[in-house]
This record gives sequence, structure tokens and C-alpha cells, in this order.
Amino acid sequence: MHFGDALTAATKAKSPVCVGLDPQLSKLPDGISKDPKGVLEFCKGIIDATKAVACCVKPQLAYFEALGWEGMKVFFETCDYAKKQGLIVIADGKRNDIGTTCEAYADAYLAKDRPIDALTVSPYLGSDSVKPFIERCVKNDKGIFVLVKTSNPSSGELQDLPVGDEAVHEHLAQLVESWGMHHIGPKTNFSFVGAVVGATYPEEMKYLRTLMPHIPFLIPGYGAQGGKAEDVKHGFIADPSERPGRAGGTGAVVNASRSIIFASGGKDWKDAAEKAAITMSKEIQAALKA
Amino acid sequence: MHFGDALTAATKAKSPVCVGLDPQLSKLPDGISKDPKGVLEFCKGIIDATKAVACCVKPQLAYFEALGWEGMKVFFETCDYAKKQGLIVIADGKRNDIGTTCEAYADAYLAKDRPIDALTVSPYLGSDSVKPFIERCVKNDKGIFVLVKTSNPSSGELQDLPVGDEAVHEHLAQLVESWGMHHIGPKTNFSFVGAVVGATYPEEMKYLRTLMPHIPFLIPGYGAQGGKAEDVKHGFIADPSERPGRAGGTGAVVNASRSIIFASGGKDWKDAAEKAAITMSKEIQAALKA
Repeated sequence: MHFGDALTAATKAKSPVCVGLDPQLSKLPDGISKDPKGVLEFCKGIIDATKAVACCVKPQLAYFEALGWEGMKVFFETCDYAKKQGLIVIADGKRNDIGTTCEAYADAYLAKDRPIDALTVSPYLGSDSVKPFIERCVKNDKGIFVLVKTSNPSSGELQDLPVGDEAVHEHLAQLVESWGMHHIGPKTNFSFVGAVVGATYPEEMKYLRTLMPHIPFLIPGYGAQGGKAEDVKHGFIADPSERPGRAGGTGAVVNASRSIIFASGGKDWKDAAEKAAITMSKEIQAALKA
Repeated sequence: MHFGDALTAATKAKSPVCVGLDPQLSKLPDGISKDPKGVLEFCKGIIDATKAVACCVKPQLAYFEALGWEGMKVFFETCDYAKKQGLIVIADGKRNDIGTTCEAYADAYLAKDRPIDALTVSPYLGSDSVKPFIERCVKNDKGIFVLVKTSNPSSGELQDLPVGDEAVHEHLAQLVESWGMHHIGPKTNFSFVGAVVGATYPEEMKYLRTLMPHIPFLIPGYGAQGGKAEDVKHGFIADPSERPGRAGGTGAVVNASRSIIFASGGKDWKDAAEKAAITMSKEIQAALKA
């Protein structure tokens, strides 16, 4: 299925909650070994605990790479497990390169047989670094999320620089819409090209939603980074009547990592993660209805 | 040793040639198996053939990641082999993330025990995505190269956007100088914070050299992408007398990948790579003397 349609269907069926798998060794709960084996056990436990409410998981490659090749083995095993539980898998690697090198990244994460649905992509190199991914998405029914406005405090240093009347990230948003608008899903008109738009900048998000009508948003920064349900609601499509095949409350997935996966460091870590995901889902649904 | 000093010493001792290890399976020479084992054999062969003339190698992570975790195993084995042959190793991963995630990337590639000297870094997230790497460089005598002006045709889509009187990449160059100038090597005044500046934009390089006096340049795009010795000479320090402890012809390393490693696809691939590296070294030395 086209990734834009698949993401939307999963959002409608469960919730827009995306669980960020950031298995930082020092934070793993009591009783989990601080090694690749423990990371796999932990990630599987979080997946089991949250799969009823979350539509997707976002494993963060950095934490797996930090464990060397043994960590990368566990990364693919984690993705495979999540896929088998019916979750959409977004590999957060913020990869970026050009030409055949970019194709190699596409082979690494968006090949047909990889248990991954989408990859995050960094845009500093321009369209040369995006088009090879797009070709692979067409071929293999995969997706990408391009960093547009990130959730961190210093994101403005480059992203908010003024280019005439607009900011760099607004200019980029229009490029992303132009890359994505030719690749929209038949059921929802959402593209397989998505954008990363941080929960911590709600005003920017509101405007970016108008600049990228065909682009699904991946919204990080919920929970530990300070983003709230009131902030993220602007990333969703408000009025479904305007867009046939869509529904209100689609067009975005919201990621929380630490506030879910490390909700408890004790024996009850799975229960605590489940509760945190359910609470987050309810908060967002309430904000969308308000 | 401080990375800025170590890179300069290696450049003076041998040449500014950096050999890009881009082991694309379909291009591996006859007689090399098209799998991780073959990739390791190929990379070791290229290292042996070029180590007398090149000061460093730049393994491109994408080609190793494309082979899954088995590829990552071979990546670290390749880096280890290169270090043991006395080469400086620059991991080309263009990594970028923030906070503890950025620290995880630093653990992955710039930990004390990793056989890697420096990592390339993408700057779209701003200083939040650079400072954790810098802390690790201080602690472990490692380096980073921040993408400033890349060699590809579409690099200008974001990098050349006009911000007042200057381009985005010029603004970034001043940020990079500000990040790096507090971390200069005692012997050369070159920082362990470097910049990626493409050979294919010589006019921009000339100006960027003035904006980043303490920053070593990693110059890709030589050879197959069209960059020539006349183009890259602007990335070097011209007049050593102005900067005590430096020497003319330092301050930059120039990377060529395909034109060296795939100089021949036949049985003579090692000899062809050696010849290509020697020719490149001579071309650059001649341009620097002219």
C-alpha cells in the first residue's frame, strides 16, 4: 500500500501516537542487561506494551549504532519484530547524501525486504539528496520524512534565517511540498514524502500545515521536550470535508520517546509505558475534538 | 595528539590526498566477491595500494550500511586496518541529531576505542547537533567536519539562499569558525572542527577560506565529480608566514573516491589505484606551487 495511505489508515485505526525507541543503555530498567541483548528485550517489551494504542514506532538508529555492529543487528531485529506486530516502522537516521551514496542509504533502509516503512532524511544537500530516496519509495512502497523545522532549541540558527520575506524552513517546506505532491496516495491524497515538524514550535507548525497540504507530519518533541497536545493539533488536517478520502485527525503522527519508554525505571516499566501511551493518545484526541 | 595538528602533520608527511572508500558492490573489480567479505578484501587492497601517498581514508558509511549489520562489522574492520597502516580515518556518515541522541552518535564513532579519527556532520539542526560532538572531540582527541558547501549540483537550493548580504553557507561558515576557534591545535592553530567544502565551487571556496581561518577543509568532488587541482588550491593556507607553526600547502585534505578506487575494474585495480593517487598528489602539489 502507498505509504501515505498506510500511515493514515493506521492513525485512524489506532491513534497518531508514535513510540520513539531510544534505548539508551544507562536508562534501561532494572533487570534488563545493559548490552545489545538487553536492548532487544527492552524494545520488544515496549512494542508489546504499546502496540494496541500506537500506530507506529520510531527506532532511533544512533542508540543502536552506539553498540557497534552488534547494535545494528539488534536494530534490524527490533524493526522486524515491530513489523510482525502490525506497527509502521520509521527508522530515525536523518540520513543524507547524494547520487549513488544516497542510493546505498536507500538500499540500507528502504529496500523491499527491509522491515522498515520510512526513513528520516536531512535536507542540507538539496534535492540531489532526496530524489534517490523518492525513486526507491515509488518502487518499494516506502516513505521518507524530511527535516523541516526541528524541535530543539537551536533549530532556528539555520532553519529560521530570513530569506526575503520567509524563513529558510518555510522555503524548504515549499520544496518538500513540490517533491511530495506528485506522489500522493490514491485514498488520502497524502504523499509518501513527509516532513519532520517539532511540537515545540506550534506557531510555525500552523503555518507549515498550510504550506504542505499533501505532506504527512512526523511531530517529535512531545512529552520530555515540552510539546503538548494543544501544540501538536495544528499539524493535523482540521476539516476532512475539504479533502475527499481523508478524515479529521489524520495527516500527522506524534512521537514521544523518553516519556513513554522510560516512564518507569522499575519492574513496572511495561505497564508504565502502556499507561503513558494511552494517556498521550487521549490527550491528543481531546485536543483534536476541542 | 590534537586532531588539527595530527591532520596537518600527516598532510605534510605524505600529501593532502584522502582516498574515499565507497565500496559499491556492482563496481567491485573482477575476482572480488560481491559481499561483505569482498568489500573488506577490496578496502584493504585499496589501503595497501595508496597508503604511501595518501594521508587519510574516508570510508563512506552508506555503502557498508547497505549490507546490513554484516556491512557494519566490515566497516569497523576496515577502519581498524586503516588505522594500523598509519592512516587518518574520517568516517563519512553526515550524522546529525541532538542531545543524548547526538551523544550516542559520538559514542558510535568518536569513542576513545573506535578506530576512527573524525566524523562528517550535517548542520541543519544548528549548534545543538554539534556541541555534543565537540565535547567528545575534546575528551578523546577526535575531529568533525561540518557540511558547509557541498559538491553536488543542487547544493545551492538551501546552501546558497540569500540571507541579507550573504548566503546561508557563508552564514554557517561563520558559525563553524565560532565553534572551532576555541579548539585549535597548539602546533598549527587548526581546529579539530573542520568543514566540508566541495571542489566543484572554487569561487565559494576562496571566500570560505577567509571566513574560516582556523578550520581545516575536507574537499570532496575531486576527479569523477569534476573538481581539479586548480580548483582545490584555494582551500589551502597560501602563506604560512602569517600563521606560526603552519606550512604552505596545509589546511585541507582533498578526497577522491571513484577516480582512485575504481581506476581499473580488472586484475590491475591495486596498481591503477596507486597510480591514480600518485597522479592526484602530483597535480595538487603542482597547483599549490604555481
